Amino acid sequence: MPLPAELELIDRIRARAAGARSRNLRLGIGDDCAILRPAAAEELVVTTDLSIAGRHFRLDWHPPESVGHRTLARGLSDLAAMGARPVAAFLSLGLPRELVQKQKGRNAAWIDRFLDGFLALADATATPLAGGDLAESPLFAADIVLIGAVRRGRALLRSAARPGDLLYVTGALGAAAAGLALLAEEAGTSPQAALSSRELVGDARLRRHLYPEPRLAQGQALVRRRLASAALDISDGLSTDLAHLCHESRVAAEVDAGMLPLAPGATLRQALHGGEDYELLFAAPPDSKVPRTIAGVVVTRIGRILRRHARRPQMTLLTAQGPQPLQPRGWQHFAPVKKEKR
Amino acid sequence: MPLPAELELIDRIRARAAGARSRNLRLGIGDDCAILRPAAAEELVVTTDLSIAGRHFRLDWHPPESVGHRTLARGLSDLAAMGARPVAAFLSLGLPRELVQKQKGRNAAWIDRFLDGFLALADATATPLAGGDLAESPLFAADIVLIGAVRRGRALLRSAARPGDLLYVTGALGAAAAGLALLAEEAGTSPQAALSSRELVGDARLRRHLYPEPRLAQGQALVRRRLASAALDISDGLSTDLAHLCHESRVAAEVDAGMLPLAPGATLRQALHGGEDYELLFAAPPDSKVPRTIAGVVVTRIGRILRRHARRPQMTLLTAQGPQPLQPRGWQHFAPVKKEKR
Repeated sequence: MPLPAELELIDRIRARAAGARSRNLRLGIGDDCAILRPAAAEELVVTTDLSIAGRHFRLDWHPPESVGHRTLARGLSDLAAMGARPVAAFLSLGLPRELVQKQKGRNAAWIDRFLDGFLALADATATPLAGGDLAESPLFAADIVLIGAVRRGRALLRSAARPGDLLYVTGALGAAAAGLALLAEEAGTSPQAALSSRELVGDARLRRHLYPEPRLAQGQALVRRRLASAALDISDGLSTDLAHLCHESRVAAEVDAGMLPLAPGATLRQALHGGEDYELLFAAPPDSKVPRTIAGVVVTRIGRILRRHARRPQMTLLTAQGPQPLQPRGWQHFAPVKKEKR
Repeated sequence: MPLPAELELIDRIRARAAGARSRNLRLGIGDDCAILRPAAAEELVVTTDLSIAGRHFRLDWHPPESVGHRTLARGLSDLAAMGARPVAAFLSLGLPRELVQKQKGRNAAWIDRFLDGFLALADATATPLAGGDLAESPLFAADIVLIGAVRRGRALLRSAARPGDLLYVTGALGAAAAGLALLAEEAGTSPQAALSSRELVGDARLRRHLYPEPRLAQGQALVRRRLASAALDISDGLSTDLAHLCHESRVAAEVDAGMLPLAPGATLRQALHGGEDYELLFAAPPDSKVPRTIAGVVVTRIGRILRRHARRPQMTLLTAQGPQPLQPRGWQHFAPVKKEKR
């Protein structure tokens, strides 16, 4: 008796996911639920991120391995922002039938190449795939759930920044947005040419866009060394994520444009508003001894946290032309529709 | 400065979700992650379920309150099948813009009525909504993540049924499938008429389809009283879910057609293969003192677990005409495409 098609695909994913283990995962794929056994001194953090074809990536631009990598990286980056280590991942997939079937002239179906990218990052970060769900869907959608562990009471919150704290970022900003712009430009003529072009494949900006690196070691170091008061990851863009931080901490902030660590080939606009850099943005008390690098990644002071005032903008950008209000202009869901002229 | 539209919707959901609490949830919506603090004597179970418009429900058939209820019920039913109590829910939504906007002549947007149904069940089951994600999407998709807690080592697994165990189900079978058939029939003429028809609204089968009741108290009682060896919930249909149990436990099973507790107005076919009853299917050793009702719900013995044999079907249905192979004919994702005649 042949197994139903769903079981076959689940068994395929399960066989491929069998490698990764974590000490707190007691039972992975195959039952109604996975079972986690947390350590007594730790608490668990949970995050979910939804990726939808045509919104978060394009099937005609992004290689399946990149879509898989980016799906997991989004969730891991949220763990990094809390200072947590990965315990388990859960992946729900809405899959068009043609992505599950082998394509002509290819050895692997789209979904297998997606899993290649997903599981390579899972292996590299010791993140076991412990469950999920599958459904046929006219549109590709992937919801990633990440569970992490962090010492009790030490998770880095968005809500704990205080006036007087200094603002820092890891790494460089704007590379992912610059990489996406590059991809869009080349794809304008021929998307396949864009991705097979040798110069493009070697471009650091494109690589940052296609294969971002969640800052897990850096987030964990911030917790271990008690360096930061608050943190989040830059997924929507510095301006929008800083607005999140100000909103949750009920503070204001100023950023010095001249201090921003621009990625090579990125513009100030891309560094301020471009999303998907997956660097960490954190606040630290002025007496915190924040080092210049953490686990091999540069850390840069970019501004400070201020008291909120009714008559002052929540965010200010210091420029050579003087201070100006900084608006959140990064990624927004449900942004107001522009009124069309009649 | 107005908040970005995404923050506004998140704040709306957060305000509505603020009521529910659970003792193990330290931090809910608003940060990169939620924070859970499990009790030392417990382990956590995690499940995800993806619902897609047009696959799991129809926007033109199902009231938004039912879609919200069913989304959460699917996840809660997986907790029930492990014998766990709810700790937190996470909801990722891919939302068409028109579902977020108020409709003409209505006081609430579709999404608000969806949340009505979702949060009513969350309240009734003490399940706090602790996080999630939102994205605009041409297609409605909801991924529900449920985290539950159960005493260490006591979760009910699919893989622990043994030859000689007896098979039981809670409640009655086939009602949800009968309700769906009823809905489809009425909707054939006018879907709106179907749902506003007084007889239909009062129909127990339709109610079971639109507002299924996850068997949380029953699952927890099976664990507390150590009654069952293995369990899962009947979400795909008895035949398909029993195939899952046999597959994971490496056993065979026989079901006595005459013993099946058919819901009033449901056919044998609907009881065997109709999905979404969300009753529990469990195995118990022959000396287990399984009561006739658990927490007000009838429990019925329907068959037994057998040793697996290469030359015997994995599942057998005992009928008045003698034994016959039982095929998994419930809900399947990626079922083989039927070849069309040319």
